[in-house]
Amino acid sequence: MATLGAQKKHKVTIVGSGNWGTTMSKLVAENVEAHPTLFDQTVQMWVYEEDVTIPKDSRHFDPGSETSNKPQKLSHLINTLHENIKYLPGITLPPNVVANPDLPDSVKEATIMVFVLPHQFIPRVCDQLAGKIVPFARAICCTKGVDVSEKGIRLMSEAIGMRLNIYCGALSGANIASEIAQEKYSETTVAYDPPPMDSRAPTPSGSPTSSQVDLISPSKPNPSARSARLKALPAEYPPLSHENVRKLFHRPYFHVRIVDDVAGVSLGGALKNIIALAAGFVDGLGWGDNAKAAVMRVGILEMVAFGKAFFEDSAKTSTFTEESCGVADVITSCMGGRNFKCAKKATATGKSIFEVEQEDLNGQKLQGTSTAYEVNSFLRSQGLEADYPLFTAVYNILEGNVKPEQIPQLIEPKAK
Amino acid sequence: MATLGAQKKHKVTIVGSGNWGTTMSKLVAENVEAHPTLFDQTVQMWVYEEDVTIPKDSRHFDPGSETSNKPQKLSHLINTLHENIKYLPGITLPPNVVANPDLPDSVKEATIMVFVLPHQFIPRVCDQLAGKIVPFARAICCTKGVDVSEKGIRLMSEAIGMRLNIYCGALSGANIASEIAQEKYSETTVAYDPPPMDSRAPTPSGSPTSSQVDLISPSKPNPSARSARLKALPAEYPPLSHENVRKLFHRPYFHVRIVDDVAGVSLGGALKNIIALAAGFVDGLGWGDNAKAAVMRVGILEMVAFGKAFFEDSAKTSTFTEESCGVADVITSCMGGRNFKCAKKATATGKSIFEVEQEDLNGQKLQGTSTAYEVNSFLRSQGLEADYPLFTAVYNILEGNVKPEQIPQLIEPKAK
Repeated sequence: MATLGAQKKHKVTIVGSGNWGTTMSKLVAENVEAHPTLFDQTVQMWVYEEDVTIPKDSRHFDPGSETSNKPQKLSHLINTLHENIKYLPGITLPPNVVANPDLPDSVKEATIMVFVLPHQFIPRVCDQLAGKIVPFARAICCTKGVDVSEKGIRLMSEAIGMRLNIYCGALSGANIASEIAQEKYSETTVAYDPPPMDSRAPTPSGSPTSSQVDLISPSKPNPSARSARLKALPAEYPPLSHENVRKLFHRPYFHVRIVDDVAGVSLGGALKNIIALAAGFVDGLGWGDNAKAAVMRVGILEMVAFGKAFFEDSAKTSTFTEESCGVADVITSCMGGRNFKCAKKATATGKSIFEVEQEDLNGQKLQGTSTAYEVNSFLRSQGLEADYPLFTAVYNILEGNVKPEQIPQLIEPKAK
Repeated sequence: MATLGAQKKHKVTIVGSGNWGTTMSKLVAENVEAHPTLFDQTVQMWVYEEDVTIPKDSRHFDPGSETSNKPQKLSHLINTLHENIKYLPGITLPPNVVANPDLPDSVKEATIMVFVLPHQFIPRVCDQLAGKIVPFARAICCTKGVDVSEKGIRLMSEAIGMRLNIYCGALSGANIASEIAQEKYSETTVAYDPPPMDSRAPTPSGSPTSSQVDLISPSKPNPSARSARLKALPAEYPPLSHENVRKLFHRPYFHVRIVDDVAGVSLGGALKNIIALAAGFVDGLGWGDNAKAAVMRVGILEMVAFGKAFFEDSAKTSTFTEESCGVADVITSCMGGRNFKCAKKATATGKSIFEVEQEDLNGQKLQGTSTAYEVNSFLRSQGLEADYPLFTAVYNILEGNVKPEQIPQLIEPKAK
């Protein structure tokens, strides 16, 4: 019904080609093929170009072939082998995924951009895209996490939306890319709630500079005035309704629920890492599954409180307690995620989590520890540490101020 | 503040002395000692009398003592050793726990009765108590589960309350008795919401017969008219407010949240076992933690829907999504409970769960399978199987009609 009268189709670009980005390309390409009246049949995937040599254990390695032993361009390999042998080996991509190393060219005529970039690359990539995109394009940000500092909280989707002057939603859930690539069942949550837009709005002539990109802070709530500057989708395109956005992501093995709450979806993916540390600390004491479940429950309610305190216009309780981006992602992270495992080992061995990180993570850093520090710095600046006793306990354990054994006492609700 | 002017104190009896009942006695006895202005200092524990010989590995076994080698009365052993060597070995009970094998004597003058009996004993014990209790006594039911059949749903607390013509709340959470007995941290939920009572109501002369005990069914909502027949607590007693009920159960290692929703608390403890089977079936396929978390999330929302559909006056979403009796108990049950483990093994080995039950459970039966059958029988009688696709899928897997691999397809939400 929604496509009646639409003469154009949506072109989709995946901005990013790592493990998660390539997985997204695969499932989005399957979906554009399933909905040919809505979507252009080619899915562009922007590739940060690099030289790659086919590994000897790859099914594409041919010892007799000269090219197999030489470095080749990653985009070329993806387009000829239909596999990202470096970041998603072993998974065949649909032929309608086209790798493109030219960033502006990859988004040419794209009305939908799916951002799947590492956190730290988002500002740079957006700055390169500004002014070169379709002005009425819309984006979905699949990068988890938020920028939290003493100054305030910035959602990734807000950062993208403001830099490009377009609407940007978010996708987050209990998702491990390699499992989804193998079509093992999972779920996700897409937050998508574009404000009313001006169909007469001029094409923006440039992007705001970094300093113009507002931070969310309690004293300065989520700026929505800018929505009036967003350019509406022309009537020739099928509407980008919840129904049609769902068709872009939902697969039989990847169930999508759509909500309005971009803030809640984004916060869930960040704050769950603090909860996973808490669950690991408690589990390392050998207190059993009940203690672990209790800490998870308390953590979910602190996420709810955090969302309501700092995003009162948007964050909803149900996003955290009922959606994949909330409760399910907390469960997954507390069952076997890295934050959980390292925290558990730290308690069980009496080491600090930073020692465990060094020993076990091969130079990588835990997301949970930096989020715990950032959130604590923000809460302290607001004088609100006491309102988030579990988040605060995790920070104090990391700092060596308290011990995991003290968690029950630290989070004990006061009698009324 | 609440006790100003109160001349009497509440006497507490624990009705039951198994693993969970003895644990309850311990923590309640600690709490009456901590609140001497509210509670009588002795906690009676009714013991179903039996002859017990002290096991040789007990710290109380003395090979030189004649009595150590002879069977002795369990109540006598508890009162002399301050330990329930049969059902909670190794845990010292406070001296103010008094085991009493005489049921009517154990509840004499008790204004608070904590029921911790196996499901099947509740009707018989209540029938023996009827007419012999303080008419304005109140009860808390700690037995998990509900009676579900084609005819309707009966909560344990309702069964107790109606047979004794008193108010009965419920306690349920992510609780394993032996862990709580060892003072390992956990949480629970107490549902307590007595209706307005008639301070002039006559003492009931007897108990209703079984046929008079109403079932809850969609066509006959939760009867509350009887509340007018309940006898109010006399003014000489401290009020049994949320605050004072919390003081009876809350410990530093056992955190209590009080809610109004008896139906939700009771349903959580029953329906979670169906979810644990579903999680086990999926986990046995090796689909990973995301698939498992997804099934758990879907299951929690089916609990919410079930509560709202059949207990619309009382069941609240938050009871299932935010409290220990809901989300936390689901988490615990899906991490290591028996239902989960047996279902996982059934899928992984290709056996039916009934074969696994026979092999691994030493004659015991899983709670989840009978609950899944009972709930399905009820839903089918209402024509509502399709509204609970996960509960229905579990039933159909048990029946051999579908395979665990089909769960994603069976629970896939339809596009609007």
